Order: sequence, then C-alpha cells, then structure tokens
Amino acid sequence: MMKKKAIILLSGGLDSTTTLYYAKKHGYECHALIFDYGQRHKKEVRSAVAVALLESVAYHVMRIKLPWKGSSLLDKKTKVPTNRKMKGIPSTYVPARNTIFLSFALSYAEAIEAQVIFIGANAVDFSGYPDCRPKFYQAFHSVIKEGTKAQKIKILTPLIDLSKAEIIKLAIKLKVPLELTWSCYQGGQKPCGICDSCRLRQRGFDSIS
Amino acid sequence: MMKKKAIILLSGGLDSTTTLYYAKKHGYECHALIFDYGQRHKKEVRSAVAVALLESVAYHVMRIKLPWKGSSLLDKKTKVPTNRKMKGIPSTYVPARNTIFLSFALSYAEAIEAQVIFIGANAVDFSGYPDCRPKFYQAFHSVIKEGTKAQKIKILTPLIDLSKAEIIKLAIKLKVPLELTWSCYQGGQKPCGICDSCRLRQRGFDSIS
Repeated sequence: MMKKKAIILLSGGLDSTTTLYYAKKHGYECHALIFDYGQRHKKEVRSAVAVALLESVAYHVMRIKLPWKGSSLLDKKTKVPTNRKMKGIPSTYVPARNTIFLSFALSYAEAIEAQVIFIGANAVDFSGYPDCRPKFYQAFHSVIKEGTKAQKIKILTPLIDLSKAEIIKLAIKLKVPLELTWSCYQGGQKPCGICDSCRLRQRGFDSIS
Repeated sequence: MMKKKAIILLSGGLDSTTTLYYAKKHGYECHALIFDYGQRHKKEVRSAVAVALLESVAYHVMRIKLPWKGSSLLDKKTKVPTNRKMKGIPSTYVPARNTIFLSFALSYAEAIEAQVIFIGANAVDFSGYPDCRPKFYQAFHSVIKEGTKAQKIKILTPLIDLSKAEIIKLAIKLKVPLELTWSCYQGGQKPCGICDSCRLRQRGFDSIS
C-alpha cells in the first residue's frame, strides 16, 4: 500500500522537529518545507536541513525574504525580549507568518497530492501568537475548502495542547536528535539562554529532570 | 488627513490594473505587491512594474518561484488550453496561488498598518478558479480575524461581480493604460490570441464595440 503523503513545516526547532518524527512514526511519507524568510536566527534553517538530511526526507528551502519588517525577528536593529511576562502578543510576532507558511504548504500538498499538512504549533506554554491557536487552524480549513481544487487537505497540529515538558518527553520517546534542533531567537553561535524561546525550552527541560 | 493605506495585488493584467486605478480613485495610498512565481507569462511582471512606475505607487516584487508544478502556468512542458469550454477548474489553476498572494499581502498590510487589501478577482466570466469566488474571500477574512495581530484588515474585490465587458468599461472610465496591461498566458512577445485569457479579454472588447 502506498504511504500517505504529508507536508511538514520544519523550522529546525524542537517543536517542528518533534512533529516530523511524530508524522514519520504515524506512517506518513514526509515532505519537509523549510523557510528562509529573513529571520535573525537563520541558524534554524541549517538545523532544519540537517534534520531533513538525517531522516532522508524530501525537503525544499523556500527563500522568501520579507522586504518589510514589523517584527523583532526580522529587524536586527531591534532587540528580542529577554524578560517578557508571557502575556499579550510579543514583538517576535512576524506578521501573518504562519498564514504564509501554510499557504505554501497547501500549494505543495495540492501539487504532490498530499492529504495532510503537519505544523508544530503549540498554544499552551506560548499562547501569545495568534497564529498558533486552534481557531486559526479551523479558519484555515475553510480557506482550503473554499479556495483550492483539493478541498480536503487537513492541517494536523499534534502538539497544540501539550506543555513544553510534554513535548520534550514525546521528543525523547520518538528519539528526536535534540542536539540538532535550534530554538534561540538570537543569531549567535550558541543559544543566548535568555530570550523567550530559550527560556521556554529550558523551563521544559527543567520540569522533566 | 492621512490617506488610508491599501495593498494592491498587481499582476499587470487588465483586472488587477483596473483595481489599482479604482483604489486610487477612492483615495487610498496604494502599495502594490507583484509576484514573480515562475509563471510562463513572466512578461506580466514587467507590465505590473510599468504600471506601478507610471502611477508612482510604492511596490515590491516578490520572487517566490514555486519548486513544484501542478499547473500548466508553471510547467512549460505542458500546453495551456486554447479551446476550453469554460467549465470546471482549468489546468492553468496554480495550487493555492491566491492564498499565497493574500498571505503576503496580509503580512505587508500588518507591517505598514494598511487597513485594506485589494484583489482584482472576478467570479463571473471565469469562474473556474476556486480562489476567485466570494466564499474564498469570506473564509480568508476568518483567517485574518483569528490569525493576525491586526485582525480587522479587509479584502476588497471590486470587480468580483462584473462581466469582462463591464471591467473594460470601468477601465476606460478610470483611464487605465490598457496598452500596458498583459493578459496572455503564453510567454511570447505578442498575445497569442487563443488562450483562455486572450479569448476572454477579446470577448470583453468585442462586446463593448
């Protein structure tokens, strides 16, 4: 029997990498989509490619550098927050980023007749991003139904209700190469340890140790 | 009073160019978004830039060559239809194209605080494309509401219920430089005259003469 095809939005971070391993575990033929969109932490692109190569999954790197800013992840003249209370929409929000990513994934899925798109969005520990909430994905399903030839492609978000600690436990169970993943928002050689993304990752590891 | 900002999806064709002039006529400060997405009729990109320059509107050309095919507009090994009955979804449908275009327009709109996105979609004469129907734009409004910081950006489709003849009449009224616009799907120096897009354009002109 032919394997069902899935598109995986792969950033090279802990969540999307775990999602790739989850999809493989569930028997999908995985096609990874990686974005170089002008993010300050371009290092994550290399992590994503390394993961795709390690797992021998097909992948495309889309270079879609956004010519506008509107986010501290795009504009190196600004700073990413390091001591933010996890409330409201953070400055690291990139305008319509997940909408753009899903649009390309949808196009790719239609072109290769994949039935499913996986995205490692998570609404629990880090709910500041509007495009990580279940309601956003529900709305996107209507766009798929009304605006495509395929109509029935499903977006799956297996991590959406998990805490960071639960994601790490799942990653360990799935033998995710955690050392290859990259979460830090800064563009340095080593994780800064103080940005939201580093702190969240560390808090997850602390809570399971 | 500051002008309201609008993003205009500008392909260089008759419909999107008329939409730009319509938006200007209605007092918007227009920012055009032009896509070089690997289309065989790349000539339309030059038309779009020529129109933007003529009207002195800000513009970005996004180069997002899709690495997959799935459309006769992307794959020069296939032929675009020349005698198609205008029923069903044509082979020139590009998977999720308008979803991708709108996603970038949405990002741009959020970044520069534009309230409106104009798209020259038309559902009357050429209803084969699912992403040209009113229901698709209604669905996309839910994505904007649930998935963005701005939430209230509106998509306007002033041509959606007009016939091609009515669009041409509007274009003439708005003094659209019709000679600059490009509709032909083929990549030639002159319009082929037989592809769906040429025939539809010609039919429009014939019916008003």
